[in-house]
Parts: sequence; structure tokens; C-alpha cells
Amino acid sequence: MGWATSDPDFRVKLLRFVDVLPSLRTAGAVADHVRQYFREGTPLPVRIGSAVAGTGAFRPVLSKVVRQGVFTMADRFIGGAGPEEAIPRLWEMVNGGTAYTVDLLGEAVLAEGEADVYLRRYLDLIDVLAREAERHEAPADVRKPNVSVKLSALTAHFEPAAPEATWTAVRKRLLPLLTAARERGVFVNIDMEQHRLKDATHYILEQVLMEDAFREWEDAGVVVQAYLKDASEDIARIRVLAERRETAITVRLVKGAYWDEETLLARQEHREAPVFEDKAATDLNYELCTRQLVAAYPHLRPAFGTHNPRTLTQAILHTERAGIPREHVEFQMLYGMAEGLRRAVQEQGYRTRVYVPAGEILPGMAYLVRRLLENTSNESWLMHRHEEGDAEDLLRMPVASERADHAEAPRFRNETPALWHEPGVRAAMDDAVKSVRTSFGAHYALSVGGRSVDTTERDTISYPAEPAVALGTVARADTSHVDLAVAAARAAIPGWRDLGASGRAGVLREAADAIAARQFEFAATMVFESGKPWAEANGDVIEAIDYLRYYAGRAEELAPGLDLSVPGENNRYAYEPRGVAVVIAPWNFPLAIITGMAGAALAAGCTAILKPAEQSPIVAAKLVAVLQDAGVPGAAVQYLPGPGETAGAALVAHPGVDVIAFTGSNAVGLGIIQEAAVVHPGQRNVKRAVVEMGGKNAIIVDEDADLDQAVAGVVASAFGYAGQKCSACSRVVTVGSARAEFRTRLAAAVESLVAGAPHDPYTYLPPVISAEAKARIEEYARIGHEDGRLGAGGPRGAEDDRRDGYRNPQAAQD
Amino acid sequence: MGWATSDPDFRVKLLRFVDVLPSLRTAGAVADHVRQYFREGTPLPVRIGSAVAGTGAFRPVLSKVVRQGVFTMADRFIGGAGPEEAIPRLWEMVNGGTAYTVDLLGEAVLAEGEADVYLRRYLDLIDVLAREAERHEAPADVRKPNVSVKLSALTAHFEPAAPEATWTAVRKRLLPLLTAARERGVFVNIDMEQHRLKDATHYILEQVLMEDAFREWEDAGVVVQAYLKDASEDIARIRVLAERRETAITVRLVKGAYWDEETLLARQEHREAPVFEDKAATDLNYELCTRQLVAAYPHLRPAFGTHNPRTLTQAILHTERAGIPREHVEFQMLYGMAEGLRRAVQEQGYRTRVYVPAGEILPGMAYLVRRLLENTSNESWLMHRHEEGDAEDLLRMPVASERADHAEAPRFRNETPALWHEPGVRAAMDDAVKSVRTSFGAHYALSVGGRSVDTTERDTISYPAEPAVALGTVARADTSHVDLAVAAARAAIPGWRDLGASGRAGVLREAADAIAARQFEFAATMVFESGKPWAEANGDVIEAIDYLRYYAGRAEELAPGLDLSVPGENNRYAYEPRGVAVVIAPWNFPLAIITGMAGAALAAGCTAILKPAEQSPIVAAKLVAVLQDAGVPGAAVQYLPGPGETAGAALVAHPGVDVIAFTGSNAVGLGIIQEAAVVHPGQRNVKRAVVEMGGKNAIIVDEDADLDQAVAGVVASAFGYAGQKCSACSRVVTVGSARAEFRTRLAAAVESLVAGAPHDPYTYLPPVISAEAKARIEEYARIGHEDGRLGAGGPRGAEDDRRDGYRNPQAAQD
Repeated sequence: MGWATSDPDFRVKLLRFVDVLPSLRTAGAVADHVRQYFREGTPLPVRIGSAVAGTGAFRPVLSKVVRQGVFTMADRFIGGAGPEEAIPRLWEMVNGGTAYTVDLLGEAVLAEGEADVYLRRYLDLIDVLAREAERHEAPADVRKPNVSVKLSALTAHFEPAAPEATWTAVRKRLLPLLTAARERGVFVNIDMEQHRLKDATHYILEQVLMEDAFREWEDAGVVVQAYLKDASEDIARIRVLAERRETAITVRLVKGAYWDEETLLARQEHREAPVFEDKAATDLNYELCTRQLVAAYPHLRPAFGTHNPRTLTQAILHTERAGIPREHVEFQMLYGMAEGLRRAVQEQGYRTRVYVPAGEILPGMAYLVRRLLENTSNESWLMHRHEEGDAEDLLRMPVASERADHAEAPRFRNETPALWHEPGVRAAMDDAVKSVRTSFGAHYALSVGGRSVDTTERDTISYPAEPAVALGTVARADTSHVDLAVAAARAAIPGWRDLGASGRAGVLREAADAIAARQFEFAATMVFESGKPWAEANGDVIEAIDYLRYYAGRAEELAPGLDLSVPGENNRYAYEPRGVAVVIAPWNFPLAIITGMAGAALAAGCTAILKPAEQSPIVAAKLVAVLQDAGVPGAAVQYLPGPGETAGAALVAHPGVDVIAFTGSNAVGLGIIQEAAVVHPGQRNVKRAVVEMGGKNAIIVDEDADLDQAVAGVVASAFGYAGQKCSACSRVVTVGSARAEFRTRLAAAVESLVAGAPHDPYTYLPPVISAEAKARIEEYARIGHEDGRLGAGGPRGAEDDRRDGYRNPQAAQD
Repeated sequence: MGWATSDPDFRVKLLRFVDVLPSLRTAGAVADHVRQYFREGTPLPVRIGSAVAGTGAFRPVLSKVVRQGVFTMADRFIGGAGPEEAIPRLWEMVNGGTAYTVDLLGEAVLAEGEADVYLRRYLDLIDVLAREAERHEAPADVRKPNVSVKLSALTAHFEPAAPEATWTAVRKRLLPLLTAARERGVFVNIDMEQHRLKDATHYILEQVLMEDAFREWEDAGVVVQAYLKDASEDIARIRVLAERRETAITVRLVKGAYWDEETLLARQEHREAPVFEDKAATDLNYELCTRQLVAAYPHLRPAFGTHNPRTLTQAILHTERAGIPREHVEFQMLYGMAEGLRRAVQEQGYRTRVYVPAGEILPGMAYLVRRLLENTSNESWLMHRHEEGDAEDLLRMPVASERADHAEAPRFRNETPALWHEPGVRAAMDDAVKSVRTSFGAHYALSVGGRSVDTTERDTISYPAEPAVALGTVARADTSHVDLAVAAARAAIPGWRDLGASGRAGVLREAADAIAARQFEFAATMVFESGKPWAEANGDVIEAIDYLRYYAGRAEELAPGLDLSVPGENNRYAYEPRGVAVVIAPWNFPLAIITGMAGAALAAGCTAILKPAEQSPIVAAKLVAVLQDAGVPGAAVQYLPGPGETAGAALVAHPGVDVIAFTGSNAVGLGIIQEAAVVHPGQRNVKRAVVEMGGKNAIIVDEDADLDQAVAGVVASAFGYAGQKCSACSRVVTVGSARAEFRTRLAAAVESLVAGAPHDPYTYLPPVISAEAKARIEEYARIGHEDGRLGAGGPRGAEDDRRDGYRNPQAAQD
């Protein structure tokens, strides 16, 4: 740990190694990893270890030594592999006058069966701790058993977009747990996890603690994370709950343990992080929360989880000033850390409690890594412990540093996905879903040469989840419309082109802003037209916004061309629009892909004729209207829904077309490539066909993969939007020993997916797009069932078939 | 001129404007150019003039004022529009004791008719000056007429690669000119022009001054340019000539007037400039040449053309020390410049002569611009004339500055074209042409899977200029060879790919070096196989070398791929070879294009199957041998000559092929695009077809174009290699008033092109590739003759048809 503190590079390597160690199932794998992780730039003894790792005879020994070393480190921070192993240590503490709370370490819960296991482990824990407490003598407040629970572990589908449904799912495991605790006199503390789960966590607390069985129960606690910018709202919310139920709630105020993830995710999504980026700002906020918490007494009872002497001193000061009885105040520290500080607080006559994680060491490795990070961070207070004469420094008021402005506005910024944990966002989407329902029955005409053109033949679009419900009707283009549209598009080129790259970019950015302003309407349209669940529909909309802005920027960047002059010659390389672009779009990203293909063409100065997929013409009609409203001339962006076999084929074959952008099936795509290669009489250019077709996307799960992440990633990729995305994982390659466990957990996770109608925010697995698609999947499941081994899914019993819509019988085949 | 001196930006604009002015045929054009050239960043009065240029009423006035201004400037430096106008000024000088030499300004000579005009103007000049000299009294040495002549103006085809043939062409006009001069007592000075013409100019002088009629003639002079690094060799060479003929030759030592062009061309061709880049180095060299010239007396008589006081003082010093009689030493200055200095020299008792240009002011504008450049250059001595107390400074020994090293070796450098004016280069090519002739009759087998594979069917390749002469025979691949080759190419991918980008680049660079080492052999092979004249063949070879080095570098640059990571994700974008590339090459760049297409594929890690054009398989066989010798595995680069209809079609259709690179006709190219779009059973990829087809390349001659350059450029583009290049100009668009004069001069220039066999270095227009090509061109000429107006060329009389080969009846149609 000394090396890790003084050498940031080695620290990263060490933590990565500790992180991967649980996945290494053989001595050889351990030795190989030691060799690869510590080969270079590490302290000499480590490098020597790494060097001998290649030598056959040393490998088992090395593996043993390394595992032993990590176990020794783990033993310092983890109370024991399970409740029984932890008991002696807990009672050593209790006998010394220190209370405890036990947290069970474990893998992520990805399947309902895994949630069952989690519940069972907690029921066991409660039983063991209660039995032990009954057997021993100690002051009641010290010996009282105390456990910490994570709500997300009580269901495989904890959905921020649907707190009510999540409560229903969590309830069936939370009630037995709380009932057992209440019956056995065990205190239950609800841990707080990632920010996006917080609103639903509060909602669930509000439900369960208002139930008759628990309304007067005093042994419930909840966590507030001071690193959150909205932590004070959390305290206010819990206070309201406590006042409503008229029973105090204990609040453990902590700094927060998901800082890396919160900041990373925010950066990924181009939004402000919910946490303070500066440690001092967190410390300041902790103090503000301390005052608020103290002011909320007796409704709330404060428990301060901190290792920071200044923070702790402040807490003591404020509780003393407020005259809160010492038995209603607690100071909590982590097991194996800041023991001296804890003892000092205890000696001042305060109650202290140690947070003791228990569980298999290897699955608990993420916890261990976090503790190692804290113990080797140069920012951590723990690092100061050997320094002398720095009491002043330690107790100084924290000063939040100015937030550094980003050096430069980035050229392109992705639109931020909807934050479903925000009630306002959920309400907006909910309103949009209702509003779109009221628009059912509308008719969408063609847009040709700037005019609305109707046809006698019309297609009806229905909701995949309720095939009987018609969203509306759409005109059907035939070859005569194709001829008109291509002629209009040709004529529109000079005007659109001569607007210049920045002129066109301005129009496209305005369209992007318009879609952003109406993003929930667009998403709700896709919910019904394409059967997209909320999050998928939102992703589709923001990708469309991104495309418009991205291509607008790219066209501006390319517009100046290149200066390829050589001495004595002035040479300019310039970009010109190719001409008329036909965009033939798929239904699975009904807005994003058609917008991307059309946006690229329009940004370049081409005119575009959009033929949406037959399954998703309505959202495309809205897109074309937005583009025209933003300033794209009606003849420069035309709307030509119609069958691929007639309208699509006529567009592809038309001699007046210069570019064909297509995304869709192999069969159609290869046909387009062939047809586009024919130069018809009167054709000025060889057509350029940009054809994106299907594939069998593979994910490789390596032997040292973190299966929590691998299973979750494969599920999201393969089964998001019922696997109907072109980017969906359709093969998994597992390496060596990863296979058995991965397969078991994947199958369980797939079986646990929540199927339903996409307008319901709790739905993960929507119905597939059509009866044909459903039949095709069932056929594959049947083949899989006959020819191979189905890990999950496959042919269903009668009770499943009663559900409505083109329900997706997803099959995960071995 | 004051503004131009103090404002470099305005100076550039002014000189450009003066340069373009002669081409402006209307008042509107002059006004428009004033507006465009001087709109911004110019002195206020000029900007005001520019501003009013848009006002209709002012335009004729402005045009008149501007023209008048430039004529006034011109009048300062140009003696008169023609001999008659110059006479009064010349005799004013002569009467003042100063001699003169007259140089006739004019357009570039691009046609034989223009050379005739030039000769006639000089004969007139000689006549007028001689008559005048006879009429006036003055010391003989002062009144003696003296003219300066440029040899390149005596023929439309002054060819550095062929001094002997150039002498033959120049002789028929040079002899009458010198004869007239000798008979009328006129001194003729041969001006020196661009460095590339120098060797041929010396050669012609050596021929003509050794002819009996002129061997004892003393009235001949020649110029040596001190800015040339090899100027001292020139003096030595002239001295040898003077010693051989036993009659003195006058040498005018000048600094040199083509510095911009020499340095620019050298930079363009990535070679060392023949001139010193530093003015001080030129001044130093002038002094060294002065000593050498003085030492060569009495064989050589020095004439110092300089305006530099230090240079001049040195010349006086050395001639005095050597005791050269003052009547055998001359100091020459330009008309309108350094008049005070000239008078000072004259007052010291030395003979002085003024170089007087005469001619239409507008065509002489290039001369005027050069003079303006000197008068406004901050480096020029003339700029010092108003400064005081700087005599010391002016007479200080020049110190050449260290040549600045280029900051960084450029990533890619084009190979330098052959310098045909260098005798060693000509000899090497001549040897190669002879050597290739001795190889006639060889047979070239296929190279399949690393083995030499022969076939019973063979094709014979003949020399387009002498169709009866067979160069050799070539094996003919059929579909069975195609199958073998594709299988071998597929199998060879991993080995070649895994060599890595730098490994492959190393091999390709070695091949490039090997071709460079054998460049004359490769060029000579093309001379015979493809009927390429020397310069065209050389261009083809160096382009091939460039392609290999360029793609080697590009592949290395692309090899690392891109890091597209976002927070929380490691994303890598990598380049992989596509697979097997088929290269179907044209005959018109028989080495460059096949090397480019194959080089790109090989650099990327693809394996390549080369099908050369049926007309040019031999040079391709040599290329494949070089690539294999350099280290490309035999199966990674294969040689499959054969008919397009069988071998080519089979390669294109083969399911094992991934990329098709083709350069050739529209018909074949479009067919390849269609065939490549078909995905055959067993095919892994959609084929990528990179197809470069024909076009009708246009050159636009704007109203303000310099027609000397426009005509020369169109001739080079349209008729270089008999117009058989894909980049050949096939249309000229003339704007407005440019048309009539351009058309006349172009037709004359085309009629003057030297047709012949390509092994003859004097040939410009070689026979076309085949009897079919000849017949096709004749057919176009016939159509043009019937339907339009032929400006030049077209159906020929009987005497033309006696010439050998597929003589090119180039037609320039109206």
C-alpha cells in the first residue's frame, strides 16, 4: 500500500489486478495476469514476481502467494465470508461498547433467482444476528442487531422510469425482510446507491414505511449522500415522510460511494454531474446537511458516517448545541478504517457503529477496491494519519475550488439522454404518450415538390402491443410520384446547394432544436408506431438530434476544401453535393437512421427523398415536417412512403438519382447494390450506394471478464428493444472457464426480463414489430429447441399466449 | 513605386495587375480588374480608384488613366514599340558616347510561323540599325549596331533532350540572321535563357561559330549567368570554343533573369536549384567569374552587365590588373536604370553599353514586370540610391549566408524528373534505349502463386512506331489461371498482412528504389512498348516510384488507427486489409497506374493480382519481378496478362476477389461496376470496385489569360503523348475576347508539333498505340472536317502517309 500511495501508476495496476483476480479460476490465469499487469514500471520486487510468472514451476506457487496476499488485504476490511464467520468479530466490538451494522457483499442481481438468493441471505443474517444478540449480555443499544440493505438487489428490474412498478416488484421481497427484522428486533438501514436509483428508492421507502405494519416501526434508517448536489432535498423529503408517519427515521449521512461512476456517466452523457466534482465542496455540503439534519430532530435521528475529523467535530458541535440526546446520535465508520478516530469519539461518550461488510471475498472485490482506493488516495484524510502537527490543517473549513471551465466549447456534443429518475421528465413523457394517443386516426399524405399529395391507396399503421389499435393511415407512393419527386429534387439542387454549408447547417441545427423541443412527442410516436420502450425511444430521438448537428458541423468543416497547392500552382480541392439522394430507411431506428441518412445528404447540399420503412412512416412524416419548417425547401426534402417493391425499387432504379442511402436487410441491400450499379440511359452519374446491412454481432466474454458486467452488457445488447436493433448482440463467444457461470447467469437474467407493452415504462422487453417477426422468432426457438440446447426462452405454455401483442418469445440458444 | 517599395502586399497586387493588363481588351475588363485587385489593403487613393471602378461612367476614364499610367512606367524601361521608334533614343545615346544593344520583346514562340516572324523582325532590325549607323557620325565602336537574340525564339521546338536535332531546327533561321549581321557589320549577342536550355544553347553556338562562314567572325557574343552554380563551367566551355576557332568571343557576364522560375521549378521537382538562392552568393560568384573571364582574355572579351557598385569596382580592378585594353572591356546596364552609375563608369574612360528592349509594350509586359520587381525589391541595390553615407556598405565584400536547412524532412517527396539537359542523363537514356532493343524477342510467362507459368497461346507485342518490329511475346492467362491465382492470393493474405504496415512499407520502398535505379530501362521499355516519348516515359516511371513511396507512407500513417474512446469506454478504430485485390490496368500509363493501384493494395496488406493492358504487358512483367525481388511474396503479387474479355472478366467475377481496381474506358469500367455488384455464392464480401474512367477534360481560358501560357499549357495537355492520357485536355472553353487570338495561336502551335518515333528524343508527337486508334482518330478528323471547322490537323495528303507507324493525325477542331 505504501508503493500504491507513492506510485500512481502502480496503484492503477494493483487495483485493476485486485479487481480482476476473482475472475481468475486457475493458477495459470493468475500467473499470466501477474506477468501482464506488472511487467513494466512497477517496484522491483513486483517486477521480479512478474518475471518468474512465466516459469512453469513457479506458477502455482505464485498464484497461491498472490491470492493469499489479497485475502490478507481483504481480511482487513471485510468482516468474514458470511454471518457465522463475522460473529466473533462483531461481538468483540459489541463487548467493547461499539455497535455494528452488517452489509452482505455479493454479485449484482441480474435475475429474479438472484434476488431470491439475496433475500434468503438477509433472512439468514437477521436470524443469526438476532439469535446471537439474545445469547449475549451487552447494553441494549449496543448489542441491537443492525443490517444494511440495497433495494436494487431485491429485484432484477429496478426501473427509475417506473417507481410504482418497481415498488410492486421490490415489495414482495422487502416486506418479508422488514417483517423478519421487526419480529426479531433488528434495525434495517436502506443504503443509497446510484443517483438515478434515488428517486425510486425514496418512493419505495415512502410506500413501505407508510404501510400499517411499519408506520410505527422505529428501526428503519436511510442514507443521504452529501456528495450529491441535491442532498438537502433528500433530507427534506425524508423529514416529510417521518412527519407524515409520526415515527422517527434514522438518517445516515455519508459522503457517497459512487463518485467515479456518477462523474463518468455524466461525462458520457454530456450533462452536469449530480455530484460535486471537488472533494472540498462535498465536505462543505456535508456540513450544511449536518445542520439540516440536526434541525430535523426528533423527526430524523442523525448518524454521521465520516472519517473526517473536521466533519465529525462539526457534527458533534451541532448536535450538542441543539441539545440532541447522545443516545439519538451516532457516528459510523467503516470496518478496518479510522479505528483510532472512532475510539476517540467513543471516549467522548458518543455512540459509534462500525459498518461491517461480509461475504465471499472474491465477489466482494469491488468493495475491497473502493477501500483500497481510499487508503491510497492522496486526497484521503487517512493519508494524513502519520503526519504530525497538522491538527489545524485537518480542522480547517473546507474551501470549494472554483469549477474549472472547460477550455473550449467542444465542436460537437451529444444530446443528453432523458433522466427518467427526474419526476418532471417522467411526467413529460407520460403526457406525450397520452397526447399521441389522442392523435390516433390521423392521415399522413405524401410531400412531393413542396406540396401535400394524397393517394387513394392507404396503409394503416397499428400498435404492435395492441394490433387492433390503429395509429393512423399513410398515403402510398407509386412510380408516378417517384418521377415527380425526382424531377423536383433535381430542380431543387441549385437553390439548396447555393445556400452554402453554413446556411444549410443553420437550417439543420434549427430542425435539431425543434426535435429536441418536441422530443417526448417524437419518442411517444415511436412507442406506439414501432413498439419502442421509453428509454429506447428516447435514445432514438436523441441520436436523430445528434445526427443533424453532427453532419451540420462536418459539412461546415469540409466546406473550405483543401489547399493542395505546390510551388507555382494554385490547387484547390473542393466538395460539391453529388445530387439527388434517396434515403431508404429501416423501421428499427425509425427516426435516428432516416434522420442520419437524410441529414448527411442535406448537410452536403444534396436534395433528399425519404422513403421510410413501411412499418414506421408516421415518425418520418413528423421529421419531414420539422425539416421543412426549419427551412429545408419542400422539394429538397420529400416524403414518399410506399412499398419497397414498388416505390423503393423505382427510386433505386431512377436515372435521376445520384446517391442511395439504405439501411436494412442483406437481401434488399444486395439488390440495391446491384441495381445501383446499372447506368441507365440519361443518367449523369454512376450511383453511389451507401448500404448498411445486417450482421451477426458477437460479444467476446474473456476468461477474466467481470460477469456482473458481461451478463448485463449482453442482456442490454441482445434484448434491448427485443433484439431488433442492427447492433444487437446475436452471438456470444465465451473464453475457457468463463462459460459455465456466464451461461447460467445469462439464462436467468433473460428469463427475468420484464415483457410488456412499450407504453408502460416498466417494460423492458416489448412485443416485436409484427406477427411475421413473432412467427420467425418462434420458428428459430423451435429449431433451437430441436437442434440445440435452449438456455432460456423458447416455446411457451398456454398461459403466456394470453398476453396481448406480438409478444417476443426471445430465445437464448446454447 | 514608393508604395510598392514600402508595402509588399500592394507590390504583389500591382505587379500582378501590370502583368494581366495586356490581356484586358476592353475598358470594362480593366475597370473590373482594378476593382478586384485593389479593393482591399491598398493605399487609400488606389482604394478610391478601385471603389469608383464599379461606377459605369467612370469605367472608360479609369481604364484610360490606368493604361496611360502603365505606358508611362513602360516608357521608362522600353526603348520604343519597334526599331523605328527606338532609333532617336539610341542615337541620343550614341551621340553621348554610349553604345547600345537592342533586344526585341515579344510573345513566346510556340509555332514555326511565330519563329519566322521573329526572324523577320530581327532581319528588319539589323537592316534599320545598319542603315542608321551608316548615316551618322560617331566613333566606330560606339555606333556599331548591336542586337541581342534568344535562340529559343528561332524554333517552335527547342528540345533540351535533343541538342543535335534542335540545332538542325534552329540553324535554318540562325544562319540567315548571322549572315545578315555579318554582312551589315552588326554585332550579335546570344542571350542565355533558362538553365534547362543552356546546354543546347552552348551546343548550337559550338556548331554555328565553327562553321566556315562564322569561324573568324569577331562580332559574336554570348551570355554567362553568375547566379548559376555552374557558371564557371560555362566560361570554361566558351573559352574552349574560342580557342578552337581562334577568334575571340565576347562574354556578357550577368547575374541572370530567370531566378524566380528556376527556383520555383526546382522546388516543384524536388531538386536542388541550379541557381544560388542567396543574393550574396550570386554576387560572390560574379566576382569569381570576373577573375575567370579576365584570365581567359584575349580568347574571351569581358562585358560586365551589372548595376552593383562593388561588382563593378571589382571588374575594373581585375581588368586593370590584367592589363586588358579598355576597348576590349565593356560595362552594360539596362535602359532606364542606374543611369548615374553608368555615367560614372563612362567618365572613368570605360566603354558602356545600354541594353535597350524594344517592342509592343503590352506583349513586353513580362520584361516590364521584371524591371518593376527589381526597382521595388528591398534587396536591390537600386533601393540604396537615395541613402547617404553608405559607400562602405555598398562596396563591402558579399557574404553568402548559410543555406537554411529545411526544418523537417518532408513525409513524402516526389521523385525528380530526368534533367535532359544534363549530358549524362541523355547518355543513360540513350544507352537504355539501345539496351532494350537488344532484349527484343524475349518471352514473358505468367507469375502464379510464386511460380512462372507458361501457356501455349502467346501474344506478340510490337513497337507502335515500327509495327513490324516485335518486342517480345507474352503468355496469355485463361480462367484456370485465374482460379489458381485467386486461391494463391487468398492463402497469401495472412503472411503479407502480418508483416505489418511498416514491414510492407519497407518492401515497397525497396521496390521503389529498385525502379529508380533502373529508371531508364523502365522508361526505354515504355518507349518501345507504348510509344512513349522520352519525357513522357520518364514521367511515367517517376510517378510509379512516387506511388510506391506514397502508399507505403500512407499505410504507415493509417496503421495505428484511431482512438475513439469516450469516458468509460475504450474504443479503437483499426484498419484491416480487405483481402484479394485485382488490378486491371490501362496501357496509356503502363507503369505508373498499375504500380499505383497495386501499391495501394499491397501497402494496405491486400494481396494483388495484376492484369496489365493487352498493349503493355512487358513493363508490368518487369514491375512484378521488381516487387517480388524486393520481398513481396510471389503469391501476394501475381502477374496475369490476358484478354480483358476472358482473363479480366473471370477475375472481376471471381467470388474470391474482394477489391477491383480498374483504370480504363467507360464501357469496361461500367461493366465492372455492374459485375462487381453481384454477390456470388461463396463470396465473403461485397466487392469494392475502384473504377477510374474517361472524361472530357476541359481547360478554361479566361479573358485575362496569358496566352503564351494558355497555348503552351493546352498543347502540352492535349497533345502530350499524342493526347492518349486520361488527363489529356479534350475541350477548351475560351471566355469572350480571348477566343480569336487563342484559336489562331493554338492551331499554329499544333501544326508545328514535331511528329516522329518515340525513341528519337526530338519527337514530341509519337504514333498512337495501334492501327485501330489511328483509324478512330482519322474518323474523328473526317467528321470534324465535314461537320465543323478544323483548326489544325485533319485528313492529310499523300506525302504524310509515307511516314511509318500509327502516325497520329491529331485534329484540333473548332
